[in-house]
Amino acid sequence: MPKKIIVIGSGAAGMSAASSARKYDLEAKITVFTEDEYIAYSPCVIPWTIGGKVGWDNIIMHDPQYYKREKNIDVITKTLVTDVNDVDKTVTAGGKKYEYDSLVIATGGTIFIPPIDGRNLKNVFVVKTIKDGQSIQSALRESKTIVIIGAGIVGLETAAVLNEIGKKVVVVEMMDQIIPRIIDKDMADTVQKHLEEKGIKFIVRSPIQAINGNEKVESVTAANIDYPCDMVIFATGVCANLTIPKILKLDIGQLGAVEVSAAMQPYRDGKIVSDIFLAGDVVQCRSAVVSGPIMSQLGSTAVKQGMIAGSNAAGDKKIAGPVSSPWVGVIGDIHVAGTGLSLGLASWYGIKTLEGKATGFTRARYYPDRKPLTVKVSADVFSHKIVGAQIIAGEDATGRINWLASAIASGTIVEDFIYRSENAYCPPTSMVRDVVLMAVDDLRNKL
Amino acid sequence: MPKKIIVIGSGAAGMSAASSARKYDLEAKITVFTEDEYIAYSPCVIPWTIGGKVGWDNIIMHDPQYYKREKNIDVITKTLVTDVNDVDKTVTAGGKKYEYDSLVIATGGTIFIPPIDGRNLKNVFVVKTIKDGQSIQSALRESKTIVIIGAGIVGLETAAVLNEIGKKVVVVEMMDQIIPRIIDKDMADTVQKHLEEKGIKFIVRSPIQAINGNEKVESVTAANIDYPCDMVIFATGVCANLTIPKILKLDIGQLGAVEVSAAMQPYRDGKIVSDIFLAGDVVQCRSAVVSGPIMSQLGSTAVKQGMIAGSNAAGDKKIAGPVSSPWVGVIGDIHVAGTGLSLGLASWYGIKTLEGKATGFTRARYYPDRKPLTVKVSADVFSHKIVGAQIIAGEDATGRINWLASAIASGTIVEDFIYRSENAYCPPTSMVRDVVLMAVDDLRNKL
Repeated sequence: MPKKIIVIGSGAAGMSAASSARKYDLEAKITVFTEDEYIAYSPCVIPWTIGGKVGWDNIIMHDPQYYKREKNIDVITKTLVTDVNDVDKTVTAGGKKYEYDSLVIATGGTIFIPPIDGRNLKNVFVVKTIKDGQSIQSALRESKTIVIIGAGIVGLETAAVLNEIGKKVVVVEMMDQIIPRIIDKDMADTVQKHLEEKGIKFIVRSPIQAINGNEKVESVTAANIDYPCDMVIFATGVCANLTIPKILKLDIGQLGAVEVSAAMQPYRDGKIVSDIFLAGDVVQCRSAVVSGPIMSQLGSTAVKQGMIAGSNAAGDKKIAGPVSSPWVGVIGDIHVAGTGLSLGLASWYGIKTLEGKATGFTRARYYPDRKPLTVKVSADVFSHKIVGAQIIAGEDATGRINWLASAIASGTIVEDFIYRSENAYCPPTSMVRDVVLMAVDDLRNKL
Repeated sequence: MPKKIIVIGSGAAGMSAASSARKYDLEAKITVFTEDEYIAYSPCVIPWTIGGKVGWDNIIMHDPQYYKREKNIDVITKTLVTDVNDVDKTVTAGGKKYEYDSLVIATGGTIFIPPIDGRNLKNVFVVKTIKDGQSIQSALRESKTIVIIGAGIVGLETAAVLNEIGKKVVVVEMMDQIIPRIIDKDMADTVQKHLEEKGIKFIVRSPIQAINGNEKVESVTAANIDYPCDMVIFATGVCANLTIPKILKLDIGQLGAVEVSAAMQPYRDGKIVSDIFLAGDVVQCRSAVVSGPIMSQLGSTAVKQGMIAGSNAAGDKKIAGPVSSPWVGVIGDIHVAGTGLSLGLASWYGIKTLEGKATGFTRARYYPDRKPLTVKVSADVFSHKIVGAQIIAGEDATGRINWLASAIASGTIVEDFIYRSENAYCPPTSMVRDVVLMAVDDLRNKL
């Protein structure tokens, strides 16, 4: 009898789980249930599709027919899973019961919208699915001024794209800096200044209070001031979607997401629930830096966890490491990246840190088209372990942040990083001593 | 009494040694002796200055006046050091004796030119110093066809630049592939095909036999065939310049360069020679992969070693780690990078390896202006340690190769790399699972 594997959710975690299960078990019957119509696309690209840089059709990598034909995976779209029973091992989807031997829950998250007046008015959107993006794009034709709620990476990527296509953009952020929590104020201020020079307006330290209008949005109120606008986009971050975990009474961790083992298995009353695996925005992760859990709601994390959860659902024995969660955003023409803890988060966890910082270029100082590159690295003053890093660059932040993320995930101390690290050099693509190493040199001198 | 520190050589190693000595000791009398007229420039950029992409004036970072004014370092140019005596601790330069308390030898290397007929003809050049580059540039006006001897990175960078400015370029290589020793044949063939499509001609498996002509070069003979040309450029790699080490009777290692301790100190008859430090192309390095020594004649290695040698000469206690030597070259519009051992070198050392390979893009598969990206990673079949990696990419190879170099330098095994590694993702700058991780996934599946 082939093994019956059911996956709930068709995002990055769900689809990589299904594909990885297939790689491990060529015979299994694998079924994916999803509420969505479109599967296997990257929600991270939606800011650019809204702006017309990429077509909607291009971003959908595969359709259900592809999965059936190439991988013998059944993807059942537009079908809500309403119940899961781990005693008789069944899933109820679209009113029908399906048996499973292994189950992967990859139900992702939902955008948090604060409970304020006017949030159901016309032209109030979130940036999450293709449908959201398409709705925004249609409404853009008649919108001149757009308020974006939330100055995180997705909010700013969207702001920069809308600014580029000629819209007036106002970004409202409740915290006292943009990109709060994940980068430091000095780095955030550099990004804000860059975007202000392009004409984007920022309202910080201003929680949104109301969205005003009759049928359609006409203004938002933040910190007691009204900002007239034609459109509001919430980019307020994602909360784990706990509907199914709650049905199963799985243990929910202190960050409001499902606690899982390294094998991506959930707990109930502290004991592992067998034959169930989770992946993606619905779980909390082990941090590589602090002893407590941490959220890592990134597409790349979802894919990695999906690979582990799916393989294990098929019988493999894989485990996930602690996370340092490297991320990168492209905001207009600058790349902003980070990994580990910002100074603010480190201080919130009670970790005393010192930081090193260096500024240089992505190419040799004299090479044409060089772009500025600033790197910050911080370390725990007791252990000297690198706990966080941030980069702002005109290009090439991605490989550099992965390099630093890998060091953090391995618990590398500053002295050992200097001792072992080298950098490739060629004038059209780096400085002779990379700015990453210059920043760590600076940190070592301070420790 | 301020400490007297003498540095011999004004390349990357020498100048970073002098600057690092000054950082550690604000009082020391620091003197740099150099045969050269121009100091503190990157010879790595010369292919592009020849082509006119960068001006000669731009590539000289600083002159002797700068070092005097900003760092109180005396740089004595156009002055040859003819003797060093480590008993009375003196250096003889320009016919005068100078006392030292600490000495840094950073005399670099010289281009190897095989002892063949015609090598002293007019229009036969090497690519090393600014003067070499300027001589090439002058002679280019009357040259249509140029033969480059040696298909290493510098040879190919030069070939691509000369091709771009409309010259007919023939590259002659004695080994059976281009970029021999440091990358594998499949990767080299990709680069060769790319350059052949641009019109560059390659003659491999063909040691140069003669350079022919009367006063001026008219052709070269390789593998018994004559290739007419107006100019010959040797890009045949660098040999350690051992004049001063031989005067001091320092131990020369099996690779023909000076053996040094982790603190960059030389040996004589197996015992450390005190108060002398070396850095740059003149030394051999400890390998992070094999137990024997290895050469790492890279600008970035020279800077790192110079920092250590110079600091230690001033009284600091720094050590250099084993090297995985990441390098990157920009050949026309492709970036080629490597670290650790190629398959050929691994096999030469008797290391049995398996390799993983993946091909993808530098941005999301659907994102405009994405460039192809191929990554190869190899591991020791016994230890599973990553021993080598190579990248060919349209952009952004540098950070990725540093990431892999760091893993090799830390002795990371494949399973641990997968367990701990994450990648930053944003559609304009990466795939959701980076090609580096895809290559390591492939390798793990084979192990």
